Amino acid sequence: MSDAALLAEVTRGEITESVHRGHAAIVGPDGALIDGWGDPDKVILPRSSCKMIQALPLLESGAGRDLDAVRLALASASHEGEPRHVELVSRWLGDLGLGAHDLLCGPEASRDPAHHDEMIRAGEAPTRVHNNCSGKHTGFLMLARHLGAGPDYVEMDHPVQKAVRAAFEEVTGAPSPGWGIDGCSAPNFATTLRNLAGAMARFATAIDGRDARQSAMVRLREAMMAHPGLVSGRLAACKTLMDSAPGRFVAKTGAEGVYTAILPERGIGIAVKIDDGAKRASTAVIAALLVRVGAVSADAPGIAALLAQPVPNRMGVNTGHVRPVAGLTG
Amino acid sequence: MSDAALLAEVTRGEITESVHRGHAAIVGPDGALIDGWGDPDKVILPRSSCKMIQALPLLESGAGRDLDAVRLALASASHEGEPRHVELVSRWLGDLGLGAHDLLCGPEASRDPAHHDEMIRAGEAPTRVHNNCSGKHTGFLMLARHLGAGPDYVEMDHPVQKAVRAAFEEVTGAPSPGWGIDGCSAPNFATTLRNLAGAMARFATAIDGRDARQSAMVRLREAMMAHPGLVSGRLAACKTLMDSAPGRFVAKTGAEGVYTAILPERGIGIAVKIDDGAKRASTAVIAALLVRVGAVSADAPGIAALLAQPVPNRMGVNTGHVRPVAGLTG
Repeated sequence: MSDAALLAEVTRGEITESVHRGHAAIVGPDGALIDGWGDPDKVILPRSSCKMIQALPLLESGAGRDLDAVRLALASASHEGEPRHVELVSRWLGDLGLGAHDLLCGPEASRDPAHHDEMIRAGEAPTRVHNNCSGKHTGFLMLARHLGAGPDYVEMDHPVQKAVRAAFEEVTGAPSPGWGIDGCSAPNFATTLRNLAGAMARFATAIDGRDARQSAMVRLREAMMAHPGLVSGRLAACKTLMDSAPGRFVAKTGAEGVYTAILPERGIGIAVKIDDGAKRASTAVIAALLVRVGAVSADAPGIAALLAQPVPNRMGVNTGHVRPVAGLTG
Repeated sequence: MSDAALLAEVTRGEITESVHRGHAAIVGPDGALIDGWGDPDKVILPRSSCKMIQALPLLESGAGRDLDAVRLALASASHEGEPRHVELVSRWLGDLGLGAHDLLCGPEASRDPAHHDEMIRAGEAPTRVHNNCSGKHTGFLMLARHLGAGPDYVEMDHPVQKAVRAAFEEVTGAPSPGWGIDGCSAPNFATTLRNLAGAMARFATAIDGRDARQSAMVRLREAMMAHPGLVSGRLAACKTLMDSAPGRFVAKTGAEGVYTAILPERGIGIAVKIDDGAKRASTAVIAALLVRVGAVSADAPGIAALLAQPVPNRMGVNTGHVRPVAGLTG
């Protein structure tokens, strides 16, 4: 086991003010580690970066057979609670004869600044549909109904979470060594960076029609690539990344500094964990690794802005940058 | 030089999800290092943790001779933009015949949740007086007028910043090896953890009437201890820390994971820098070190809550804790 590697730096003027360490793994189509930083065998909680894995049982069970790409993207999303996200999830819930009160994810303020302020002005409280995980939870509810199971779908011994755990352990290739309660109350299963990247490589190499799992993986990755703005939001880094090379890869963030990527053209999976949980660093590092594997150009405007994120002060003066460490882009 | 030390951990269930490394120094009344973690000679930007140093020229020049403890606390504050902060700074500016437009700190949204939402409902934009540094900047303006200097008081070669730099280098005991532009546009001078803690020890051992510097140090530390809610805010960790032992020490946060403390009774100064800039960790670590030196009890409710900060999810379920590493409290 090796220590966390230095992965990103934050400058202010000529001073390196803060640094971010972490772990990362790039896994190839054969499941072997292509490249690693820090300790690729470090056990982490993938948080929302594994939502496409958590959505597998919805499709594999047949429950989500008729779902369109929009709803599959939402089932795999950390959306930003924009009006269209809320509207689309609400309509899906409505089609199931369910409502916001059936979601067990808790309320979350919209991450869309305009809508956030608009709700405050209107005196409206954040709802459970605004929660970035509301699409995932609607998928869980749809699966629960299909399985004839009860409403407590976030409990560890509920058929939904049993199915999620089984799928998670199969695609990561190992029993999960632990778990935590996620921000949305669902269990989040632990794995290593190497095995999380391996699961992403399985998504990348999946072929439609080969079996139920591979077909589900293809539908989910295609839906995510088709709707970056539903998987994340109009101002989100996941959208910026995916928009830089439309239809070429999936990039998915998770809380506490996790990022994953699925690259179907190369059959590659990537997983990143910043040791201290900082999103500014995980974003810089996933951008660097996507450049490294040739998925995007460092010069593309959106990518360049993530590889040297400005740190403006309150007068709008730029004081420094968040950058991946030298050499990370290859 | 040693590496950053592991200083804080974030758990989720039984998993250690994230960790925070950093550096810390405790310096005694004779200026010698009592205890150190990581690299006490690490160069850092103290950010707002050194505001009491930046306020020294205001008093030493005579400009602030007649200021009361409220205004001295505000001059050393990272306030939260609560209504009373805004009112007090506005009145001070008014007494100088100045207004918000004279402040060069930039506008900042109030950090007081109720006032923040109230302003959105009223359609009011954040002002420069709401900026957490507006008291420091009002002190700068007062000093600039006393010195007969122009309005560009955040420029490096302005008499105000020359005076701040001279005071900073004198109390830290060394030429500053660099600087950055702070969030409020003022220069922020670099120093080491050891020398920042040493400066805090000078504040701690200062005796009123001995000379202009020591008298200024006493007035500032007493003002900060008398008004924790003006130095920070009603919901801020600095206030929680100082309220746990009223009048016994100063605790002052800075951006990017910095914290300082001044302990007059023991003549001790403390400085903490979290390598990755996380406030959740700097708060846990300063609480631990204040317990270690006997300034507060780990059992005091406010302190206990900082030594094991709950991580609630959106359903209000606690998922884990932010804690200083074992042994840090002594």
